[in-house]
Amino acid sequence: MENRIPSRLLAKAVDEMSKLPGVGKRSAMRLVLHLLKQEKEETFSLSHALYDLRENVCYCKVCKNISDTETCDICSNTRRDHSMVCVVEQIQDVMAIESTSLYKGVYHVLGGSISPMDGIGPRDLNIDSLIKRTQEGNIQELIFALSPTMEGDTTGYYIMRQLRANGIGIKVTTLARGIAQNDELQYTDEITLGRALSGRIPMKE
Amino acid sequence: MENRIPSRLLAKAVDEMSKLPGVGKRSAMRLVLHLLKQEKEETFSLSHALYDLRENVCYCKVCKNISDTETCDICSNTRRDHSMVCVVEQIQDVMAIESTSLYKGVYHVLGGSISPMDGIGPRDLNIDSLIKRTQEGNIQELIFALSPTMEGDTTGYYIMRQLRANGIGIKVTTLARGIAQNDELQYTDEITLGRALSGRIPMKE
Repeated sequence: MENRIPSRLLAKAVDEMSKLPGVGKRSAMRLVLHLLKQEKEETFSLSHALYDLRENVCYCKVCKNISDTETCDICSNTRRDHSMVCVVEQIQDVMAIESTSLYKGVYHVLGGSISPMDGIGPRDLNIDSLIKRTQEGNIQELIFALSPTMEGDTTGYYIMRQLRANGIGIKVTTLARGIAQNDELQYTDEITLGRALSGRIPMKE
Repeated sequence: MENRIPSRLLAKAVDEMSKLPGVGKRSAMRLVLHLLKQEKEETFSLSHALYDLRENVCYCKVCKNISDTETCDICSNTRRDHSMVCVVEQIQDVMAIESTSLYKGVYHVLGGSISPMDGIGPRDLNIDSLIKRTQEGNIQELIFALSPTMEGDTTGYYIMRQLRANGIGIKVTTLARGIAQNDELQYTDEITLGRALSGRIPMKE
């Protein structure tokens, strides 16, 4: 069907839309034709929101979470417990933990997990900045809220080793394995996630 | 989860994306975070393609098909049979019929079907322009390739009545009902669609 698209503009829009994950040519066509039936302003809002996000979004200089300001709302909130840092892989993990309303500490977003298969090493993640934060002396506990997968485990152990190699003896805990093995953290239900947070256990060395 | 989005820009992009049909808040978040991980240019291309489409696309002044020019490629092609007009509801239907490679005539896109339930009457469709085309004298046959639904049938009968009321006695045919009742034309496979086109039958009055 895509070879028969009667408009170059339409073909281009469908092509760009179908680059999104899980969106095939046929879905892309359906989405784009939907936009053509709506008011122009609908499409312009979408177009502008995507441009604006990619152009202007920034990442918190402390925790590397997505933010509209240099320091994010969580890091600049004096009512949060800054001695407790929850280490997560993704931005979505922060949102998932925040939705439990059970955590009052701050975060550190690694940006992924160590995965040699995907060519992701420790240097590709925000690990150095985490070590630096722990060296500044105010942090009493790190909570690893990493994926319950081989990559998540590897990442946790790597950070542990880095801490000990730098002579940093702070308490390190990890989420209770109430979370099912191989599940993705961001899709875990709030109760399971909340319980795993309350029942966190000391990290084995 | 959506209440915990840490960035207004991110929230706005997710909100706009989730207005698309079949895209929930969670899928929208996944798509937007995917864009954030790609090069900026990927997002800018998508944003620009959508804007450009909605701002600059036009519809063929003859057949009402989507087009980049005043008259579409099919209508301006002198090698096509301009005495035969295939009447379809949607732009996608033109693409579906073109993909059979069996049709050498031209088209007329109504823009939908008569559906009182959805508040769509004859005046909301490109019916007057079709009647006008048939009055100009060069058309010998109209082929109704409308949805095999009550709305499609109603639309066909309405156009027939309009033609006869205007004293236009041209041949009117309709696609053979090899197409299953209640199927959507644009998702019919090419062989079924091709056969239905070859085996078209005279419209009953």
